[in-house]
Amino acid sequence: MRKINYSNIKNQLINFLQDYLSKSGANGFLLGVSGGLDSAVVATLCKHAAPNSTYALLMPTSTSSQTNLDDAYNLCKTLEINHKVINLDDILNAYKTTLDIKNHHRLGNIMARIRMSLLYDASFNINALVVGTSNKSELMLGYGTIYGDLAYALNPIGELYKSEIFEFAKFLQIDEKIINKAPSADLFEGQSDEADLGYSYAVLDKVLEFIEVNGDNYENLIKNFNDELLINTVLKRVNSSEFKRRMPIIAKIS
Amino acid sequence: MRKINYSNIKNQLINFLQDYLSKSGANGFLLGVSGGLDSAVVATLCKHAAPNSTYALLMPTSTSSQTNLDDAYNLCKTLEINHKVINLDDILNAYKTTLDIKNHHRLGNIMARIRMSLLYDASFNINALVVGTSNKSELMLGYGTIYGDLAYALNPIGELYKSEIFEFAKFLQIDEKIINKAPSADLFEGQSDEADLGYSYAVLDKVLEFIEVNGDNYENLIKNFNDELLINTVLKRVNSSEFKRRMPIIAKIS
Repeated sequence: MRKINYSNIKNQLINFLQDYLSKSGANGFLLGVSGGLDSAVVATLCKHAAPNSTYALLMPTSTSSQTNLDDAYNLCKTLEINHKVINLDDILNAYKTTLDIKNHHRLGNIMARIRMSLLYDASFNINALVVGTSNKSELMLGYGTIYGDLAYALNPIGELYKSEIFEFAKFLQIDEKIINKAPSADLFEGQSDEADLGYSYAVLDKVLEFIEVNGDNYENLIKNFNDELLINTVLKRVNSSEFKRRMPIIAKIS
Repeated sequence: MRKINYSNIKNQLINFLQDYLSKSGANGFLLGVSGGLDSAVVATLCKHAAPNSTYALLMPTSTSSQTNLDDAYNLCKTLEINHKVINLDDILNAYKTTLDIKNHHRLGNIMARIRMSLLYDASFNINALVVGTSNKSELMLGYGTIYGDLAYALNPIGELYKSEIFEFAKFLQIDEKIINKAPSADLFEGQSDEADLGYSYAVLDKVLEFIEVNGDNYENLIKNFNDELLINTVLKRVNSSEFKRRMPIIAKIS
């Protein structure tokens, strides 16, 4: 993987946040803090960029991990970020009852969209920018909910692979408890990103970076990685999620 | 305003829908039908493009207009479109209780995002494409909820001004009851687009078309329309809603 100077990146990303904020006319930043690594990194960057106007929502359900909620809460306390807990259960149960949903995947999407709705509602109230926490690995693989966790005004970490977010988090001295836990969207009990994706981020990121630098030529990829299943898995995810990385298509007329 | 050949446009838009559908691998189209003009036009186009696989959700609340629901229902019956009514009240009330919302504007955004969530949930279930119904006037003015009614896979009418949608609807022989009602997002009782916007679409569309063709030079606009309040109103809306017409900004790193 490429070598990164995290001190330099930290400054670049803080400048990015401050520039965007001052041009936007908004009062500050708002993000969902989950207790996971990505939102911990983004919360830390926002706090540096806007020390007195960074806001967090903690949005657990009764099935999400108590450890994650505790870690999210402690992060906000340590960083001294204005934060509020909103339990999703009532809203989620209303969706479940109205739609009779039991399927994990559908519920996960609904949860991600409830969280987006709560963040945008709060952002309207306090005139803050909703900050995204998707990393480059998730964005390339389409591992996220369109109009859910992929919906935000700006994102400081979308060009960093997940493997790099780990290193960056160490550099930022984020709590080791957060750094050492297995990556999970925590949409249902025991969920693991790497189990969902079928490979570790260490493996996936090498392929994703190769694609970014050298393009997605199939023969090239096979030659370099010598693993058809891996390459097919990654290419299928990257290609089938293209719609998540662009605006809706509007019919041209002539 | 420009002259439009609606017979030609109808064919173009049906081709657009069919092309996109066949490339996507999805089974059909899904849209929210409100009883208003835009969704009636889009439903008609989808039915032409995919006669046996066009699906509609009707998503009223207890405060939305019964006339609109009746008109939506009759449209689906007349067009022979597969349709389902989902009342939003339980979900909306759960948001209201969780967030203690009374503000109309916030509730309108929540409703638009609930409808998006229901459409995407249903689209996942039946492998259909969510079709948008925003017209060019709304898109340019930012009159819509980001990640709500502005969220969809594709949109056949986004290059047609609202004034043109009226003419197109007459050409498509849509029920006069739908054509003749005042445009409204129906997010609260008595809401009127033209009251929200401060001007009729007939007036707004002339300015929007001028901007599209000639650019947004202030002096030019004043010279042409001789109405500072109108031009300021339109330019403010167009400029402040730029974020609704592009992807979130992701920090570049170097």
